[in-house]
Formats: sequence, structure tokens, C-alpha cells
Amino acid sequence: MQGLHLTADLRDCRCDSAWLLNASQLGSACRSAVREAGLQVVNEVFHTFPHSVHGPGGVTATLLLAESHLCVHTWPEQRAVTLDVYVCNFGGDHSAKAQALMDALLGLFMPQHTERHALQRGALAISSSAAHE
Amino acid sequence: MQGLHLTADLRDCRCDSAWLLNASQLGSACRSAVREAGLQVVNEVFHTFPHSVHGPGGVTATLLLAESHLCVHTWPEQRAVTLDVYVCNFGGDHSAKAQALMDALLGLFMPQHTERHALQRGALAISSSAAHE
Repeated sequence: MQGLHLTADLRDCRCDSAWLLNASQLGSACRSAVREAGLQVVNEVFHTFPHSVHGPGGVTATLLLAESHLCVHTWPEQRAVTLDVYVCNFGGDHSAKAQALMDALLGLFMPQHTERHALQRGALAISSSAAHE
Repeated sequence: MQGLHLTADLRDCRCDSAWLLNASQLGSACRSAVREAGLQVVNEVFHTFPHSVHGPGGVTATLLLAESHLCVHTWPEQRAVTLDVYVCNFGGDHSAKAQALMDALLGLFMPQHTERHALQRGALAISSSAAHE
């Protein structure tokens, strides 16, 4: 169960709004990004939140991976997104694939501000960084 | 999108093996724990991994919450579990509910060793602790 959990909290995303609103479009992009990173989807679930007084509802996209999971939450009214990429390194080191998947998703959302963390799970080591891109 | 992400990596779980193997039973317990913590399930997905040379396959249980998500991965051959409870505090502070949910799940799996982290998302603050219980 030793593994790497990457998080990124994105603000001021400059992407087309459809990536924040359309679960089908987002899900398709996530599946492609997972595959291109060399990881494997085993199941998935999406949820679109209803319109509120703040504007159109966001999307949650979760893809279960053979290697653990990818979770995406969007907040269109803030043009904000949170990303979780967690890979267990049981049977091989998938850390580079996790980084590649995270980079692909950051490229999709094009945030102006990103806060990233990397948590080594199953071992007491944390590194974190914040970047303004 | 400011929120609290709790992780726990559990080893040597003393629970009945069914909690590590049976997606239906685990899912039902997760739904109850979410509800009792005062959080709200909006969708869910489960996956049972196939038998391998290491023994019976584990389970991934993901519950999408109105407040963000709960992810559980089990490794029965190691009697290990990873837990993620992430709540966004948009519209109210759900931190105490997240802690209650995490505590309920720890009570279910009864690990001998637990490594926990709390990540304040949307702000640069991390606290972590390891406990042998």
C-alpha cells in the first residue's frame, strides 16, 4: 500500500468553461489522460451538481484505477478545480505516471494559480509547493 | 474550494476479513458512516479486484459527497486499508463531520498501526501525525 498521492488545488482556470461544467466531456478527457499516462481505469462515476444561487453547478469525476484513483472536483463559479491522483506502488513504481497524469490535467484546466502537494503514503514524508503560473 | 482532506493509512487491521473483501458490505457501512457523520452521498462506485498470486483481491469504494468525497482502498493480503475523507467547506465548515467520518471508519477496520495526515486545501498548511494504537 506504499504509494504517492498528488493533490493540486487550481484557481482562475483559463480553460473553456465546458471543462468545468460538462461531466461527459471532462470524463472523456480524464480517461484519455489516464491511458496516456500509462495507468488503467477499472471503473468510474460522475456527478453534476445542480444550479445554485452562485451559478451553474460543478462536476465531480472519479475514476477508479488499477493503481488507486483520480478525483476531480470543479467549482465553475470560482473557476476552481481540485485534483487528486493517488497511485499505490504495489507491483511497480507508478510515481512518474502519476506526475504525468497530474501534468496533463493541469494543462487541460490552465490555472493561473496552483497549490500542489505530494504525500508519500505508507511512509512519513510530505513535500509541498505552491506555484503561480 | 477551501477544505479539509484527511488521509489515513491503516495496517494490521483486526476487523473481520469481510470488511476488506466484500464491496457490498463495505459500501453499506460507508453509506451509514457518511450519513451518521452528517454528510451527504450523491453517488458511489465500487470495484472488487480479482484474485492474484497474493490472495483474494481488495476493494475500492468511492462515495461522492455533496461535500466532496470518501475513498477507501483495501489490501486484504496485507490487512491494509487507505482512507481519504475530503470535505470542501464551501457553504459551511464540515471539518468536524470529516473527523467523525474518519473516526467511524477507523473503528470499523480496527488497525494496529495508523498513519494520519490532515491537509488544509486551498491554504498552505499541513499537519500530520502517526499513531500506534
